[in-house]
Amino acid sequence: MAIQVSVCGPRDCTDDDRRNAHEVGRLLAERGAVVICGGYTGVMAAVAAGARSVGGTVVGILSRDTADDANPDLSIVIPTGAGEARNNIIVNSGNAVIVVGGSWGTLSELGLAMRRGRAPVVQLGGWTILDQDGKPVPGVRHATTPDDALALTGLWP
Amino acid sequence: MAIQVSVCGPRDCTDDDRRNAHEVGRLLAERGAVVICGGYTGVMAAVAAGARSVGGTVVGILSRDTADDANPDLSIVIPTGAGEARNNIIVNSGNAVIVVGGSWGTLSELGLAMRRGRAPVVQLGGWTILDQDGKPVPGVRHATTPDDALALTGLWP
Amino acid sequence: MAIQVSVCGPRDCTDDDRRNAHEVGRLLAERGAVVICGGYTGVMAAVAAGARSVGGTVVGILSRDTADDANPDLSIVIPTGAGEARNNIIVNSGNAVIVVGGSWGTLSELGLAMRRGRAPVVQLGGWTILDQDGKPVPGVRHATTPDDALALTGLWP
Amino acid sequence: MAIQVSVCGPRDCTDDDRRNAHEVGRLLAERGAVVICGGYTGVMAAVAAGARSVGGTVVGILSRDTADDANPDLSIVIPTGAGEARNNIIVNSGNAVIVVGGSWGTLSELGLAMRRGRAPVVQLGGWTILDQDGKPVPGVRHATTPDDALALTGLWP
Repeated sequence: MAIQVSVCGPRDCTDDDRRNAHEVGRLLAERGAVVICGGYTGVMAAVAAGARSVGGTVVGILSRDTADDANPDLSIVIPTGAGEARNNIIVNSGNAVIVVGGSWGTLSELGLAMRRGRAPVVQLGGWTILDQDGKPVPGVRHATTPDDALALTGLWP
Repeated sequence: MAIQVSVCGPRDCTDDDRRNAHEVGRLLAERGAVVICGGYTGVMAAVAAGARSVGGTVVGILSRDTADDANPDLSIVIPTGAGEARNNIIVNSGNAVIVVGGSWGTLSELGLAMRRGRAPVVQLGGWTILDQDGKPVPGVRHATTPDDALALTGLWP
Repeated sequence: MAIQVSVCGPRDCTDDDRRNAHEVGRLLAERGAVVICGGYTGVMAAVAAGARSVGGTVVGILSRDTADDANPDLSIVIPTGAGEARNNIIVNSGNAVIVVGGSWGTLSELGLAMRRGRAPVVQLGGWTILDQDGKPVPGVRHATTPDDALALTGLWP
Repeated sequence: MAIQVSVCGPRDCTDDDRRNAHEVGRLLAERGAVVICGGYTGVMAAVAAGARSVGGTVVGILSRDTADDANPDLSIVIPTGAGEARNNIIVNSGNAVIVVGGSWGTLSELGLAMRRGRAPVVQLGGWTILDQDGKPVPGVRHATTPDDALALTGLWP
């Protein structure tokens, strides 16, 4: 079975996020990893397009119960019908989780992935989380480039 | 995107169910369909083995939140952590649903697939459902062989 | 904590189902049980109305993610946003499960409740399930009246 | 139907969080609101104890599929069996969401509640979220006391 990496990020993303997500998708596919994503637009579409540009496999874990509005670069669609609860399925499905950019939905995925605690969580851009004392909450691995994001997963030593 | 067909059936299945599921998996993979299943043993393992015997792609939608105890013939695992609620995700994910054999869990999948009403539901062996007047409840397409099951999906006219 | 009993049944139900569900709701509330149901119309509305007619507590486990279209007799609404996967939550929430009438969605609840195997499952009217040999599948307790349904739960010996 | 308020927070919480949660629970129950929570320990147990100390109603939306380890102050238990995906059900169930304290699971609830965008979200203590430019992400209402938290829900003008 191939390595699976979940990539999370906003529907409404910045141009930087989009470029980063596309490159993360391409790099993952080149290494033979299956990309798991939310299946719609923004970062989800960019990572799918990046992976598909080199013939990769992309699974879209959709919130809706049909494939309506899914992006065109998915190899496989899972229309969960679970609404945003599908975010938990996305993070459960990765041998690592890479978060690109920030939004409230993306934050929920970061929280669920860290709560799970079973796979490395890498963040590339996006929001910062400070604890009660104003210090960064430890545990997330912070990447500065797509290459760095893959390296920090620890999946390809 | 490839056609996706969900195949449901018991963990504890008969030898006939196992043979039927294996053949259904093989036939689906030969036609290029992605097989969606529950990912564990019995009919789930047989349909996966059948599809993989000819190089097919099989997605296991697991009830647990890890890949523990998943069968070895899955190409992709989705550890939903949703318990038996994952049955609804299985039936949502197919352009058709094929039910092989009978059990209470399998019955829930048949009920959810028919309740959904968006994709053909084919039954091969298994339990019979009678309405209040003792007559078979209409709607399910009853197949007598694996070949017949694929034909009744209507996906390959 | 009060005893909780889940009552399942069709949106489009017969007059008999509606009368039975209302009476089941009333009897459960009189015994102090909290009624768990799907929260919409048909059997769900009737059991809620019956329980509320004597001041009972009714929880509606809704498929949608808002309270839209919930019936007016619910004390508490849980808008799961999980679609029909919420059927699994309904059956998980009862110290017993009573099924009134038949439909595909109801069948899924019967299947999920029996698959779970942790609480008595009582059926009042509705569909009949036969195994591969044409014999009734054992395990479900068949009631002939609402009073009988409560007795068969075994919760009030 | 009573107003429902969801209260989220860590299992492993500070003493301040515990006192705040207890007081939030008490104040909500005094106003007749039903308290929705995750049903286990820490903030979940404190808010339940506070509400029950004045005879309030508390619903525990559990991650597990049984009531095992649920706290003793719940009036009603909903053992979803959905794992951490139940966080989405918790936030869907409130006319407002109050977050007390910080943890990764709590962060996922904050994210899901803000992503939903249908009900006021109030935060009392806990973590801080900064956007790409290092500025606090707007939208969450920040309270300094339990009384303030209830006021900021806007439910009792």
